[in-house]
Amino acid sequence: MRLFLFFIAITLPAAEKADWIWSAGHVITMDRERRVIADGAIAIQGDRIVGVGTRSEIDARFKAAKRIDRRDAVIAPGLIDTHTHAPMSLFRGLADDRRLQEWLEKFIFPAEAKNVDAEFVRWGTRLACLEMVLSGTTTYTDMYYFEEVIAEETKAAGLRGVLGQTVIGFPVPDAKTPQEGLARTERFLQRFQNDPLIVPAPAPHAVYTTPDDVLRGARALANKYKVPMLIHLSETKRENEESKAKRGMTPTQLLESLGALEGRTLGAHGVWLEDGDLDILKRRGVGLAHCPSSNSKLASGVARVPRILELGIAMGLGTDGFAGSNNDANLFEEMDLAAKMQKVSSLNPELLPARQALEMATVIGAKALGLEKQIGSLENGKRADVILVRTDAPHAVPMYDVVSQMVYALKGQDVNDVMVNGKLIVKDRKVLTLDAAKILAKAREYRQRVAQSVGIR
Amino acid sequence: MRLFLFFIAITLPAAEKADWIWSAGHVITMDRERRVIADGAIAIQGDRIVGVGTRSEIDARFKAAKRIDRRDAVIAPGLIDTHTHAPMSLFRGLADDRRLQEWLEKFIFPAEAKNVDAEFVRWGTRLACLEMVLSGTTTYTDMYYFEEVIAEETKAAGLRGVLGQTVIGFPVPDAKTPQEGLARTERFLQRFQNDPLIVPAPAPHAVYTTPDDVLRGARALANKYKVPMLIHLSETKRENEESKAKRGMTPTQLLESLGALEGRTLGAHGVWLEDGDLDILKRRGVGLAHCPSSNSKLASGVARVPRILELGIAMGLGTDGFAGSNNDANLFEEMDLAAKMQKVSSLNPELLPARQALEMATVIGAKALGLEKQIGSLENGKRADVILVRTDAPHAVPMYDVVSQMVYALKGQDVNDVMVNGKLIVKDRKVLTLDAAKILAKAREYRQRVAQSVGIR
Repeated sequence: MRLFLFFIAITLPAAEKADWIWSAGHVITMDRERRVIADGAIAIQGDRIVGVGTRSEIDARFKAAKRIDRRDAVIAPGLIDTHTHAPMSLFRGLADDRRLQEWLEKFIFPAEAKNVDAEFVRWGTRLACLEMVLSGTTTYTDMYYFEEVIAEETKAAGLRGVLGQTVIGFPVPDAKTPQEGLARTERFLQRFQNDPLIVPAPAPHAVYTTPDDVLRGARALANKYKVPMLIHLSETKRENEESKAKRGMTPTQLLESLGALEGRTLGAHGVWLEDGDLDILKRRGVGLAHCPSSNSKLASGVARVPRILELGIAMGLGTDGFAGSNNDANLFEEMDLAAKMQKVSSLNPELLPARQALEMATVIGAKALGLEKQIGSLENGKRADVILVRTDAPHAVPMYDVVSQMVYALKGQDVNDVMVNGKLIVKDRKVLTLDAAKILAKAREYRQRVAQSVGIR
Repeated sequence: MRLFLFFIAITLPAAEKADWIWSAGHVITMDRERRVIADGAIAIQGDRIVGVGTRSEIDARFKAAKRIDRRDAVIAPGLIDTHTHAPMSLFRGLADDRRLQEWLEKFIFPAEAKNVDAEFVRWGTRLACLEMVLSGTTTYTDMYYFEEVIAEETKAAGLRGVLGQTVIGFPVPDAKTPQEGLARTERFLQRFQNDPLIVPAPAPHAVYTTPDDVLRGARALANKYKVPMLIHLSETKRENEESKAKRGMTPTQLLESLGALEGRTLGAHGVWLEDGDLDILKRRGVGLAHCPSSNSKLASGVARVPRILELGIAMGLGTDGFAGSNNDANLFEEMDLAAKMQKVSSLNPELLPARQALEMATVIGAKALGLEKQIGSLENGKRADVILVRTDAPHAVPMYDVVSQMVYALKGQDVNDVMVNGKLIVKDRKVLTLDAAKILAKAREYRQRVAQSVGIR
């Protein structure tokens, strides 16, 4: 019998070399046909996926130096967060259940003014990366201050980031004026251009906080460096109403009138977009970030996601900030909530089915960021951003439909292994690139400092 | 120095004996003052809580045979699920994103007719208990068939249950007629009366499925055995509209007209309750179960929770079934979603704050079940239903407000230890009373059988 097997082996063609083979009970490819491969596997060489198929196909074709094989698991593309503010992890739950103005003016702005510096941003980013990667996020999109520090830490953690340096019309921790902010942004774009993991971006905060010339300046920088521009867009009813009252235009119309949508743009939230806005966004190829936890917790409203997706506008999922708007950064929860919010607000349970929620967290998110050729699905030639999610917990069995299970039953904590750009970042829930104990200790130190600064215990 | 300490020790009064002391960074008592005790501890003797205080107070007063001490954790009352269908865990995610009628007629009813027997119920209950206790649920409320089997398995698992034997107007797996169902219910009530863990109950399914005389019969049984009656109530718009069209009354008015609310009652869902209904429910002291995951996923609607609670009607939280209506049984998710659903549907972020969501899952849930003297808070004399939730994961730090953290950041999977009625059920996330591997294997077997029975792969 052994001899016979030997004979078979030597008659097969010489195996191709791969760095890794991962196999599992199911591979969710999110390729064009949305194939789910039972007893599937993928092969990885360098930073790329080089094979996707059944385990027997992949094993026949490749010989890998390292393997992860887990029968009771699902392999899926790494999840893509299209909107967050990573360092705000240090403000997690600082002020909940409050009206936006009170929340901003009494807590967030004072806490930021008194605490945010490069060091705060560094530790906050580390904490956020730890949390994100442990719930399967491999690419995230950020808007904050000292974004070069965020880029350094994101690279060190091994995550992929579309990282937006904030420009805004008033003094902020990293710039006294918007002009200083634009200058800082350009240095940031120069430093990280062509980075394998980082897409640096200018991020004017929003039309209601950023003067027209600064919006134009941010657009010009984005186009000069061929990167997207990130901006908050029609998050609240008030934002829209004030824009119409003061400028006679919606925020989208205002951006369009300034030429600020002429180039790749990602708008966050889009809760109050009107039909005319959608026409403009569709024509300009603008991507959007839907943030269901934030929009529900801050009571911003329910974005018209099914209509937006039907128009072919790429709307991904975002977790938003940690301080009151969402107290964690977990795309499994955003997928689940995105689907539920649409159903209950329309009284139609067929809206935003599981498949579409998973698309938003993967392929559509990639498209919103302009990264659809690199990430978002498991296909040959794409970057190896891959997660392995265990399906052996009591809440994970039985499993009738793998995609439904991903969206409605599995949790971020079921993520067992994570690879970004061909590099293993999480193995058996241990983050290999970050010192978790040190980060948690530092976060607790910051807790005391921040609490004192806003007068809570 | 040693001699001096010895001297102090012998001058203290002799310590009281306790079976257990649990201590942690915070104890959330949910007592009348809603005290949160920093560096807190509780003492347990037999099935009761005998001490609640700071760790130093408890250590000075009690000497315990066994201890759990974890600095980076929160001790809280065990969570209370006021509505579920435990054995449906075996249908988890069988049919998602569908309209209720299609879901029921094409999937759930056929799947139940072909698969549900005592053995199915036994394994489904075991799986549900495993999942519930691992996410901190210590008491749950059930409505299903073969409820005596559910009671046996709930006792074996060591959970507390308010368990409702279904009576309904058509043939079901455990009764060919409603009269047979009522007879079976009475045997069930006799068998489990005065059980320390089980409250047996009659559970007429709903007004639209259960004839008037059967509703009256269920009420009579509940009153005879001094237990609550459980019923689905105003879950969907259609249920209300049909009741009004056919009977000229809302479901609540109909029950009231039949005398069926004269005695302790728990109504599940209550999404479409009208003002007049609330008056009746308040007057009758009816408890309600709010099921945010189910109501959103099945697009039933948003219950008027703040109004209901304001009226003093006890509305707890329920996870509902597993098959399409909610694909898991996790009260941490229900607390979070209950708060978010109210905020976004009203555009008011102050509605249903974290504290109220936690009340619904503890003290208010206990009141809805008529068990407020036994469970729901950590107070001397109450049953020892206690959970210890770890707060050392990246998503759990920093922590500014313990209650906010419980609702908006911590997860079911952070639950580390669980005690019910003074007995340790979960230690370090291992369920001591259930054979997890065997249950998961059996659930996978059922998966194949059920899938085949409804013609899916």
